[in-house]
Amino acid sequence: MKNKEKKLKEIINHLKSTGFVFQGSEIYGGLSNTWDYGPLGVLLKENIKNLWWKEFILKESNNYGLDSKILMNPKVWEASGHVENFSDPLIENKINHKRYRADKIVEELFPEINAEAMDNKKLEKFIIENVKEYDGSKTNWTDIKKFHLMFETSQGVVEGSKNKVYLRPETAQGIFVNFEKVQRTMRAKIPFGIGQYGKSFRNEVTPGNFIFRTREFEQMELEYFVKPENSDKAYKYYVDKTTNFSTKIIGIKEESIKLRVHEKEELAHYSKGTTDIEFIFPFGWGELMGVANRSDFDLKNHEKQSGEKLSYRDHITQEIYTPYVIEPSIGLDRLMLAAIIDAYEIEEDGRIVMKLKKDISPYKLSVLPLSKKYHSKSAKKVFEKLIENGISVNYDEAGSIGKRYRRQDSIGTPICLTVIDETDSKGIITIRHRDNMKQETINIDDLEKYI
Amino acid sequence: MKNKEKKLKEIINHLKSTGFVFQGSEIYGGLSNTWDYGPLGVLLKENIKNLWWKEFILKESNNYGLDSKILMNPKVWEASGHVENFSDPLIENKINHKRYRADKIVEELFPEINAEAMDNKKLEKFIIENVKEYDGSKTNWTDIKKFHLMFETSQGVVEGSKNKVYLRPETAQGIFVNFEKVQRTMRAKIPFGIGQYGKSFRNEVTPGNFIFRTREFEQMELEYFVKPENSDKAYKYYVDKTTNFSTKIIGIKEESIKLRVHEKEELAHYSKGTTDIEFIFPFGWGELMGVANRSDFDLKNHEKQSGEKLSYRDHITQEIYTPYVIEPSIGLDRLMLAAIIDAYEIEEDGRIVMKLKKDISPYKLSVLPLSKKYHSKSAKKVFEKLIENGISVNYDEAGSIGKRYRRQDSIGTPICLTVIDETDSKGIITIRHRDNMKQETINIDDLEKYI
Repeated sequence: MKNKEKKLKEIINHLKSTGFVFQGSEIYGGLSNTWDYGPLGVLLKENIKNLWWKEFILKESNNYGLDSKILMNPKVWEASGHVENFSDPLIENKINHKRYRADKIVEELFPEINAEAMDNKKLEKFIIENVKEYDGSKTNWTDIKKFHLMFETSQGVVEGSKNKVYLRPETAQGIFVNFEKVQRTMRAKIPFGIGQYGKSFRNEVTPGNFIFRTREFEQMELEYFVKPENSDKAYKYYVDKTTNFSTKIIGIKEESIKLRVHEKEELAHYSKGTTDIEFIFPFGWGELMGVANRSDFDLKNHEKQSGEKLSYRDHITQEIYTPYVIEPSIGLDRLMLAAIIDAYEIEEDGRIVMKLKKDISPYKLSVLPLSKKYHSKSAKKVFEKLIENGISVNYDEAGSIGKRYRRQDSIGTPICLTVIDETDSKGIITIRHRDNMKQETINIDDLEKYI
Repeated sequence: MKNKEKKLKEIINHLKSTGFVFQGSEIYGGLSNTWDYGPLGVLLKENIKNLWWKEFILKESNNYGLDSKILMNPKVWEASGHVENFSDPLIENKINHKRYRADKIVEELFPEINAEAMDNKKLEKFIIENVKEYDGSKTNWTDIKKFHLMFETSQGVVEGSKNKVYLRPETAQGIFVNFEKVQRTMRAKIPFGIGQYGKSFRNEVTPGNFIFRTREFEQMELEYFVKPENSDKAYKYYVDKTTNFSTKIIGIKEESIKLRVHEKEELAHYSKGTTDIEFIFPFGWGELMGVANRSDFDLKNHEKQSGEKLSYRDHITQEIYTPYVIEPSIGLDRLMLAAIIDAYEIEEDGRIVMKLKKDISPYKLSVLPLSKKYHSKSAKKVFEKLIENGISVNYDEAGSIGKRYRRQDSIGTPICLTVIDETDSKGIITIRHRDNMKQETINIDDLEKYI
């Protein structure tokens, strides 16, 4: 475990020094566990997001996109159950006055126990009986308090609590409240899906593990509406599709992930099944994405609370019913972290290389003049032509060619184009491949097929 | 003016009924002035955003992307002056207890006066002297109060006000605090730029005019760092580039926009010049985007408050200086609204058509079987092939072909592909163009050059 934690630290340092991730507000001492994405991080993130959009929205003929707001009418969160139930079990050690998430203490100290299946009473009893020392201190535990996870703010010019609104803790509810409008305006027929990505906020008791658990994070969620009797089939389809998305599209190794089917005791009363796709992080297996069969729970709740019809009439049989919903939900920041960890390698000779799938690597290409003195003029021409087409490519002329190749390897650029003597005279350019470090010369006109 | 307001209402209804924009949280009676983007709105918005990214980041060899957080250390907003100064002049009519933005009252009733150049004392005096009736009521005005525009929330598990954080009111400060880190990790040389897009939040006293002024909105901002003596040149470059972006790239008509150079009295003390690019909305000229020469104000402030060096050392001359910054700032929601208004036409025969530039229209193509009965099978094949490539295309088989053409015109689809008898037998397909309604038949293999 020690070695693995060292590996994460090493990766974080690498990401900071190469412009992937910076500590948020660092010049002011930071803001606990917030991370900004630098120039390379944002390119990687956008690539992953665009691939999700392509796979889950554009390529599925009956799925539609949406962009609902972060600030919504608070009644949305009453109906969804978040106001009542969206809390973490907070426990305080009266000896050092530190506060912790009770379930995380159990998970950490007793990994063989499934803490998610324990209610707060059970957790409390278990901790008081079994945890006599923690975090370097003797313990004297308080009762568990429900710590509410939604961020609150208020809007409008009238004073008082009437203006309280929440920052959304998930993007899904924005989809449910727009279900009828999307169905009607798109004349969508069941089965169909509505998906969106965007920021969500949770006032986590213990954020941590780098960008794995942060209070401000980004989700990519699809709600797929089906006839109740077809929900098992759709659930299986999206478990497969979501798993394949992480491996075949994003490029995470098959052996780095596993499926975890939730036990009955873990499932919410309305849920017909949940499968987590977990990734082996340096700090252990962690949830990367999940697919849930949420039954008709959400639409029925919103129908009841709002008084608006959220059912569906079949256009052929005229049958009216409330559809079930299958929800593949992905944490974008986590997926990014997993892709990075999986791709990061230090080879025997000390070469650091990020073997990112070409589709997600920040730069598709790097253009390098073999000699700054002799080749930078033609190299810049090649570079300018590529960026004119909006291709994500960088240009590097500082240092020896070997050093520059290593620099590109370390940020995951799959291909380097080296401009040589023959580039001007014969239209020939050197292509150097990241993964096998092989070089070949090609005619510059054939470049297109490499990108 | 009445006619124009009618036009805006008509456009809003059209956008609601075709799936561009929905009222936020509508099933719960909405949340004042929030709007969600439906399936077509989100496609339009993503297209505009991607074009900005391509033009301002990818195609400018010395510009870099960033994605900083919405929640930042509150010291950022102390240093930037927002905590102290970011407020609207709020005035209350004691007779009907309604609250207004004082400057907006003056702007509305006395359009010949530049209210932005008046301070609060002047505004107060002017309104008390000149506005004796307003909003259907006699008036008895209070003094002007500063109404703070930043949304507040608190984070963490410790109780009390120590955890107060703000929702960012602009994306720019996230760039300034990362200036040194981007410069160092990218080994960037002045001049260079850092850009990002994302959500910002302002607790506006009077949001309104549809998506023109909302409390939650999206910005696209670039901060371009230059040597002070080169700042005028860079300022002009970005005024031109930003103007051209709205016309040549997004497709807004030249005659629909105008440049407004800020008067000296309007400029903040540190500003060396600001140009607004305004659009003629149905409710009058409104700011669409702006370009400002902000001098070294931001970096100097953050350097002073944080104690971290935010200067730059020239790699050749070794000269150390604080760069000036040129800021082209674009409101994404506004730009979307302008593009829609500019493209929306009702022709003499009643045809509603949105003449959106092809690059931003939600669907690039629509595939239509001439007859649902005979051609839908081959039409679906054509459709599936296109979406497999991730092209944004829709499929429509409901209603007469004429009605379907009109439907596509009304949502801005530039090209309809109609599958006919000869599609199967001879590989021929009909292409129908939105703007001139002309039709031609082409070989299906030549489709690529149309998309």
